[in-house]
Amino acid sequence: MRVSCRGMLVPALLIWIVVSGVSRASDPASSELAPNAQAPNVVIIYCDDLGYGDLGCYGHPTIKTPNLDRMAAEGLKFTSFYSAAPVCTPSRAALMTGRLPIRNGMCSSRRRVLFPDSAGGLPDSEITIAELLKQNGYATGCVGKWHLGHHPQFLPTAQGFDAYFGIPYSNDMDRLNDIGPRGRQAFLEPDTRYWNVPLMSNEEIIERPADQNTITRRYTEASIEFIQAHRDKPFFLYLAHSMPHVPLFASERFRNTSERGLYGDVIEEIDWSVGQILQTLRDEGIEEQTLVFFSSDNGPWLVFDLHGGSAGLLRGGKGSTWEGGMRVPGIAWWPGHIEAGRVTSDMACTMDLFVTLSSMVGQPLPDDRAYDGFDLTDLLMGTGPSTRDVMYYYRDDRLLAVRKGPWKMHLETQAGYGQAEPTVHDPPALYHLGYDASEKNDVSAANPEVVTELRSMLEQHAGTVEPVESQLERR
Amino acid sequence: MRVSCRGMLVPALLIWIVVSGVSRASDPASSELAPNAQAPNVVIIYCDDLGYGDLGCYGHPTIKTPNLDRMAAEGLKFTSFYSAAPVCTPSRAALMTGRLPIRNGMCSSRRRVLFPDSAGGLPDSEITIAELLKQNGYATGCVGKWHLGHHPQFLPTAQGFDAYFGIPYSNDMDRLNDIGPRGRQAFLEPDTRYWNVPLMSNEEIIERPADQNTITRRYTEASIEFIQAHRDKPFFLYLAHSMPHVPLFASERFRNTSERGLYGDVIEEIDWSVGQILQTLRDEGIEEQTLVFFSSDNGPWLVFDLHGGSAGLLRGGKGSTWEGGMRVPGIAWWPGHIEAGRVTSDMACTMDLFVTLSSMVGQPLPDDRAYDGFDLTDLLMGTGPSTRDVMYYYRDDRLLAVRKGPWKMHLETQAGYGQAEPTVHDPPALYHLGYDASEKNDVSAANPEVVTELRSMLEQHAGTVEPVESQLERR
Repeated sequence: MRVSCRGMLVPALLIWIVVSGVSRASDPASSELAPNAQAPNVVIIYCDDLGYGDLGCYGHPTIKTPNLDRMAAEGLKFTSFYSAAPVCTPSRAALMTGRLPIRNGMCSSRRRVLFPDSAGGLPDSEITIAELLKQNGYATGCVGKWHLGHHPQFLPTAQGFDAYFGIPYSNDMDRLNDIGPRGRQAFLEPDTRYWNVPLMSNEEIIERPADQNTITRRYTEASIEFIQAHRDKPFFLYLAHSMPHVPLFASERFRNTSERGLYGDVIEEIDWSVGQILQTLRDEGIEEQTLVFFSSDNGPWLVFDLHGGSAGLLRGGKGSTWEGGMRVPGIAWWPGHIEAGRVTSDMACTMDLFVTLSSMVGQPLPDDRAYDGFDLTDLLMGTGPSTRDVMYYYRDDRLLAVRKGPWKMHLETQAGYGQAEPTVHDPPALYHLGYDASEKNDVSAANPEVVTELRSMLEQHAGTVEPVESQLERR
Repeated sequence: MRVSCRGMLVPALLIWIVVSGVSRASDPASSELAPNAQAPNVVIIYCDDLGYGDLGCYGHPTIKTPNLDRMAAEGLKFTSFYSAAPVCTPSRAALMTGRLPIRNGMCSSRRRVLFPDSAGGLPDSEITIAELLKQNGYATGCVGKWHLGHHPQFLPTAQGFDAYFGIPYSNDMDRLNDIGPRGRQAFLEPDTRYWNVPLMSNEEIIERPADQNTITRRYTEASIEFIQAHRDKPFFLYLAHSMPHVPLFASERFRNTSERGLYGDVIEEIDWSVGQILQTLRDEGIEEQTLVFFSSDNGPWLVFDLHGGSAGLLRGGKGSTWEGGMRVPGIAWWPGHIEAGRVTSDMACTMDLFVTLSSMVGQPLPDDRAYDGFDLTDLLMGTGPSTRDVMYYYRDDRLLAVRKGPWKMHLETQAGYGQAEPTVHDPPALYHLGYDASEKNDVSAANPEVVTELRSMLEQHAGTVEPVESQLERR
């Protein structure tokens, strides 16, 4: 089954395709640099607020995700895959750069994400995955939510992407004033007119408010067109769904179809989208030249009840440094290269993708900055374990927890944004995530030497962080 | 890889095989009755206290179950499969008979299960799956935990099984007196000498205390021998693991190997066992003639913390009528007949197996008693939906909840045995399990008509239950 464009959607897509094509043709890098022969095309599919437990292959009982289940069965499923932050902007900054948000100013306790009135964005000095791959001859396309700055100098087209099509920040922004003091009801009975978010093609706003009812489908169509247009040269597609962030919208075809209600409709449309992307790669005969990675920017937004997702057996959700806030689904797919049906509980993180792709294209990491990612090539190829054995858990600009191997130590915990007050743990709380993924049993008293080791790791890590200006506080 | 007998284990297995063979040879039914040509061999693998979230394919992050994951990928995975009771003896009575325990006296609020001092057991008037299949020419073997009466007239060999090899009740029974007032520590640092449980071959005790360290392996070996001995005629094997009920024991090969600790070792040995059983069927070339069903008798025993399992995203555990107490993994496997890789959220229950197998062998249900099972043939074969749309949730002899379609209504709830006091819900609490599998949002106030309908279903159902003598209170 192939998607087709219809009606008013065509012009937006046309602009996207034309600009994307022009940009590629006029880019000297694409012809001058020969990419590493073994480096694959890269597709990163990134969801917004999708929880660890929201897919069939991660145990959800009523959300049907046959395409993602199949992707996992044909690829590598991670059970300990992390986003680098429990909230949107910092998480995306880390994915794009391979560096913790604390290193590039993309986090703040005062303003947790970028808002429409923000003046900041990902600094030009940062090197994105798109820039890395573009330097190595890749065509680069960004579809979907960006949220790393919506002013021209911060948009995807200023950060290494040949072309952009999507909503530049969260889909619950640009709220109309008349939706009430907290506007909660508008989140739960979504009407696309409540949210005046723009839909952009490169630097132009082409629709406002964006019709979010069709957004997942249109992102998918744009992605397929990008793949088809670049089937003969290396490409990098970053497809960042606006869903399932509230307010939830699903295409007519998916509305009222899932047993899980609207949230399920939305996930099942994303699942359809994944199926379309993978089928396009097969149809073009490039599935064995394309590494596809699926993940999420943080855990489920639990305060929205049934409009938020599930972290499965994990504790906490979005905004929390409990596992449910940052451990997310992670599926890697590359037929003929990544062995089918593997499951790994080795640790890995979105920040590792930058480092792994650097390694795959044979480009050394810049030595003028700190990187927080690890090379996952061996883990992906089945030639060795993960090189990552540690995770630092930041909530905004505060380092609250650390994991080494199975041990995780918390200085402070909170269920999630908008939920109960934080709890300070002094002495720190300690959990063994191998035995106790749900973080129920604090075993710090019985393991003082582990607490001592993890405390010293925290201190050592903190020493590597140099203060920078917060981009999120700029207005 | 094939298992091999070694050392002291051989005599017990020899007794089992010889008796099993003799019993078959002298059974006139096996030669006189021609089984339904389409009816498969049947293997039921039944775990003890395995939780909904304890397998990789149900979302557990650190318990590795590649064989069960593969079984699910090659078969049908249920996400709404129920045991008929939240505790052992009633659950097994219902599996064996297709009838609620309340109908045959196999439940009681005073004594929840059978104990070594019990005088009762499953009444002879009940018809078991083994009796049903034996009447239809099947060889019948029972391996593992029975727990439907340990006196001779109640043992498997009196209930339709040609042969029995296993521990007749729970592995934490026959406790020595010196393990302390509650004996909790003995559960958590298991030593096989604390528990004086017998290992039986047919009606004989052949080892006491049973060496539980090797019990999963020996159950597996006995099962494989049974399959090999009966490869040329229809057979029914009921393999009821004693694990992962506390105290936990794993074979030397699996001890200290799982990231999930001893509980993970135990599940991973069960996973190995499943792999051995399926491989034996393949090796014998009878995999397309054999329906294998995998499940559990109730949810995880949460009060034992890390020695208990996980219900995943479900609420509650063993002893509870919250979903976590009774919704369990359910996987059906029958290559060439059950389509590979299907997932269904249709409701099904252990009691349906009796009715389904009756249908498959072409034997009408007896009309002198009520049956609580439904025929799953269409669901299994992919020719239609489940015929079950309702579940009644009994805690012991008390009817506490009902589910119809996605709606579940509770009159009373409790987290699980040994946990907090019960909560009476008046008016009843109502959950939509499609949207809210975790039973977090009581929506009774918004859906009074559903509450009215479910209340009347409860009353109607209660009217079908006739009082019988409790078998569990007999001493």
